[in-house]
Amino acid sequence: MYKIVLMRHGESTWNLENRFTGWTDVDLTEKGIQEARQAGRILKEAGFTFDLAYTSVLKRAIRTLWLTLDEMDLMWLPVKHDWRLNERHYGALQGLNKAETAAKYGDEQVLVWRRSYDTPPNPLDANDSRTSFNDPRYAGLAKEQIPLTECLKDTVARVMPAWDDSIAPAIRAGKNIIISAHGNSLRALIKSLDGISDEDIVGLNIPNGQPLVYELDADLKPIKSYYLGDAAAIEAAMKAVASQGKSK
Amino acid sequence: MYKIVLMRHGESTWNLENRFTGWTDVDLTEKGIQEARQAGRILKEAGFTFDLAYTSVLKRAIRTLWLTLDEMDLMWLPVKHDWRLNERHYGALQGLNKAETAAKYGDEQVLVWRRSYDTPPNPLDANDSRTSFNDPRYAGLAKEQIPLTECLKDTVARVMPAWDDSIAPAIRAGKNIIISAHGNSLRALIKSLDGISDEDIVGLNIPNGQPLVYELDADLKPIKSYYLGDAAAIEAAMKAVASQGKSK
Repeated sequence: MYKIVLMRHGESTWNLENRFTGWTDVDLTEKGIQEARQAGRILKEAGFTFDLAYTSVLKRAIRTLWLTLDEMDLMWLPVKHDWRLNERHYGALQGLNKAETAAKYGDEQVLVWRRSYDTPPNPLDANDSRTSFNDPRYAGLAKEQIPLTECLKDTVARVMPAWDDSIAPAIRAGKNIIISAHGNSLRALIKSLDGISDEDIVGLNIPNGQPLVYELDADLKPIKSYYLGDAAAIEAAMKAVASQGKSK
Repeated sequence: MYKIVLMRHGESTWNLENRFTGWTDVDLTEKGIQEARQAGRILKEAGFTFDLAYTSVLKRAIRTLWLTLDEMDLMWLPVKHDWRLNERHYGALQGLNKAETAAKYGDEQVLVWRRSYDTPPNPLDANDSRTSFNDPRYAGLAKEQIPLTECLKDTVARVMPAWDDSIAPAIRAGKNIIISAHGNSLRALIKSLDGISDEDIVGLNIPNGQPLVYELDADLKPIKSYYLGDAAAIEAAMKAVASQGKSK
């Protein structure tokens, strides 16, 4: 039997401002920093340790990982930064807040983007300064690998190869793994692990900064999954995310 | 032509307490944290960027790297943690301060350990709680790879394979590299790069938290090397190290 820990980054500045973030590289708030430290303390107290960490190339997930590892006295842990664990790309919505989005695209359209598994928001224009084409962290990618928008289905299509070719083999090799990532890249992973339908997955909310344990069998199928830590804190974090979701 | 940046970690708590540190995993002081952040700002202002970072498995070097990368907006950079870049192991001296060491071993013996290239301090007893045998970060090593003491010659003998099999090939592949390490692991590297004699290398002082640039030719031979940043700050850091050296 294997055990892995998934963790959505702590609260970010744009979670707080209720903006669509996507691939925008915003940092944690002070609350997010405390959530990440608390996650490290909870994992340590529960007796967890790790051999290898995965994260995205976005600083809110990386800083969450750093703070967690710092609290666990595991700063030396090997870390794989994989762009495929990035948040879902939110296309032309990146940077907009709820009110701006509704004003620009209409409530009905926003509802479609929020509730649909396979309808992406309008793409960024290729000349938009918000594209990631000139960002050095993506310099090793072909231009067509760098999205201008994504629906959750698109996110699943890039997250699962990271699982199949890198994470799953490491688990099978006996590595204890923590993954610090994002609401939608974790949704993508959980959809596949738990076999959740296209309809149901968009309603799954993952709270910020709460360690989520998956126990897996020899075929890496989930036996059970549970959040560590104080039930009231998890409940509160879940509610916070559900209300964020209303503007995303 | 290639360019690499070497950096000794910022001031550690045991630099401040004048204790032999070696493989003991002490953290940075507040001054050390500021040195690391300043190094990041200096590198950024000088137009440096990196593709890959190397560090040891000791938190004073890792935190120095993290803070430097944070200031450079390069948190996503791939980092290789290599135990072979650890500080020289100080054997039975680890944890002792200057006064304790002189009282225990005599001034003359301490002078030999400080000035000699190839005479190690007394080893830790294999049953000493200060050994690294049960530390998970060294779990992948054979027991005989984990030192109980080292002279600088021993440190050279483990640092240079890291250069030859990992760092040098990455440089040749065109990667811009920063190495965040320790006084003696950097001495070991510089001894080899600059062809410094066994006698002279023990007198070379590397200041804490100051980026040291090496420009290398196609054969990775140094063309020139220089510290970045404010000359007065470097001078002050050099003097601080020389005076630390008096008790090491």
